[in-house]
Amino acid sequence: MPVATQGSVKALDPNDLKAIGATIVLANTYHLYLRPGVDIVKNLGGLASFMGWDGPTLTDSGGFQVFSLEHLRKITEQGALFKSHIDGSLHEFTPEATIAHQEGLGADIIMPLDVCVSSDADRATIEETVERTSRWAARCRQAHSGADQVLFGIVQGGLFPDLRTQSSDAITALDFPGYAIGGLSLGESKDETYDTAELTAKMLPVERPRYLMGVGSPEDLVECVARGIDMFDCVLPTRIARNGALFVKSGRVNVDKAPYRAGDGPVEAGCDCYTCLNFSTAYVHHLFRAKEILAYRLATIHNVRFVLRLMEEMRSAIASGSFEAYRREFHANFTPPDQETRHTQRRKWLEAQRRLRDR
Amino acid sequence: MPVATQGSVKALDPNDLKAIGATIVLANTYHLYLRPGVDIVKNLGGLASFMGWDGPTLTDSGGFQVFSLEHLRKITEQGALFKSHIDGSLHEFTPEATIAHQEGLGADIIMPLDVCVSSDADRATIEETVERTSRWAARCRQAHSGADQVLFGIVQGGLFPDLRTQSSDAITALDFPGYAIGGLSLGESKDETYDTAELTAKMLPVERPRYLMGVGSPEDLVECVARGIDMFDCVLPTRIARNGALFVKSGRVNVDKAPYRAGDGPVEAGCDCYTCLNFSTAYVHHLFRAKEILAYRLATIHNVRFVLRLMEEMRSAIASGSFEAYRREFHANFTPPDQETRHTQRRKWLEAQRRLRDR
Repeated sequence: MPVATQGSVKALDPNDLKAIGATIVLANTYHLYLRPGVDIVKNLGGLASFMGWDGPTLTDSGGFQVFSLEHLRKITEQGALFKSHIDGSLHEFTPEATIAHQEGLGADIIMPLDVCVSSDADRATIEETVERTSRWAARCRQAHSGADQVLFGIVQGGLFPDLRTQSSDAITALDFPGYAIGGLSLGESKDETYDTAELTAKMLPVERPRYLMGVGSPEDLVECVARGIDMFDCVLPTRIARNGALFVKSGRVNVDKAPYRAGDGPVEAGCDCYTCLNFSTAYVHHLFRAKEILAYRLATIHNVRFVLRLMEEMRSAIASGSFEAYRREFHANFTPPDQETRHTQRRKWLEAQRRLRDR
Repeated sequence: MPVATQGSVKALDPNDLKAIGATIVLANTYHLYLRPGVDIVKNLGGLASFMGWDGPTLTDSGGFQVFSLEHLRKITEQGALFKSHIDGSLHEFTPEATIAHQEGLGADIIMPLDVCVSSDADRATIEETVERTSRWAARCRQAHSGADQVLFGIVQGGLFPDLRTQSSDAITALDFPGYAIGGLSLGESKDETYDTAELTAKMLPVERPRYLMGVGSPEDLVECVARGIDMFDCVLPTRIARNGALFVKSGRVNVDKAPYRAGDGPVEAGCDCYTCLNFSTAYVHHLFRAKEILAYRLATIHNVRFVLRLMEEMRSAIASGSFEAYRREFHANFTPPDQETRHTQRRKWLEAQRRLRDR
């Protein structure tokens, strides 16, 4: 799912999304609640109508944003008190309130308020978040009334298999039409992400969609599809695009760098995106160097198309029984870059957790 | 002509330009010469091919940029020595060099190197620029060889009718296929712009296109078409769009401001642009407030469509003999905003001229 945090997939318009093959977009309740406000979106016909998108939508509850260091003020059993990043005003998200906000925003799939901590928090902390997440999930289930929206459940539990089991038992007992795996890609190693995604996916009913939140890179998509995940969201493809980093079969190219100055072919030969079909690498390079706004759109189109095509190809491969061959070929070609992004994220979360403990 | 200074109409792609009704775009030799370099553009098939635009193009010679304070180092009869705004390196533009660069860039219409000064420079200075501009025009004419490109002439002369006559006599004697009026919209009053455009237009052959450089606002377009001008270029529509200022029949609206927060209709009722046909004012407002990149594109699409539709309507009105009625109706509806932009430009030029004189 391309990420439209504030009701816009950064640099793209709805026609771009259609052309890229997007079938659903994700937006964020925390951001839309604060700006422009739920009523504005509701009065304009809901999220999809507001953003001119005629396909399905999903809203995250905003829990992840609320629990990040900058915003969180106080967590109680009732809910989370947080500070607006826009004007510093105080707000409370209870499980019931996030459902009401999401009903107002009107996405097709909505998410319960869960408790987010770094995956390297201690066992006692994770145990506590699992229990609270379950109680909040039950309150969200109770509060949710809309027949035209589906509410997913979210399984927490950090990297502890038994806590993942405890969480998935509690959440699946509430019988949601789809299940998300939360609390991953927050600083742990890739192997830890993959192992936990795999064991958690196995706990979830096979006939319901399994959504791994906040993941991921192309290699993560392949490895987590291999482990039974159906849905993903991640800002990585759009964020790195705006820095000039474009996905290609062999990994990433930093198209703003000198080697691409005179490239007369497309960024990726054979790519079916608008950017590659219509512009040379040299032109995309020039747009980045000249800081032209069009650079961000052309790069974003390419990266989002890259990951959506990857998903399309994996679906075909699964259907034709050739997924393992596809996976091998992907890895034979694709070299992931250094994990700076993950490390930055890890440092931020470690610091956040430390400060929360110190409070 | 929408302005693609660096080979991109800021925030738009070639499909946007087509949809908006653009029939030609303008780019700048100074900018493209410095980055990405003439050879890069040439090797990729020339300006239009480089930017993925399959319509006509025009390049300005870069004289205006070279003569602005920040860049100019020395003017001699030979040419202008200037400093790159990118890396501080020194370069020389002679009349012959600007033609060679523009032949490399490959636009359909190219412009000679002229001498630009503020329209309130003293008579002796303007007289000197008129004479040098004529000599440089002859050198450009001589240097220009391409049968597939047309070279326009540029008439200078400030606000002095007799110097405009002197310049147009010299330039038209060189028999160019089209003529530009330079040295206006550089700090003088609107009445002075209009009066000088009118008297200069009358000096130019009626069967050749007359191009008023660097103009203008919607009211300028109407008033200067009334005075015999056929072609314009101006960054105003795209620049103010990125600040949230959108043209409407009644003038301008600052769509990022509070009154537009909940607007459920289009920015301009009846507008046929992509933005107005697909998005509410509230959404455009939200994109500006949230600093979403899409804001700049949607606003630019609207403003460029506004001025191109204005030109289309004026062409129809002229053809049907109803131009004066159209002009009256336009002014009855349209209130221009304060002239901050012009005043800023004026101050900058006055300062530039003072420093040049002091050197």
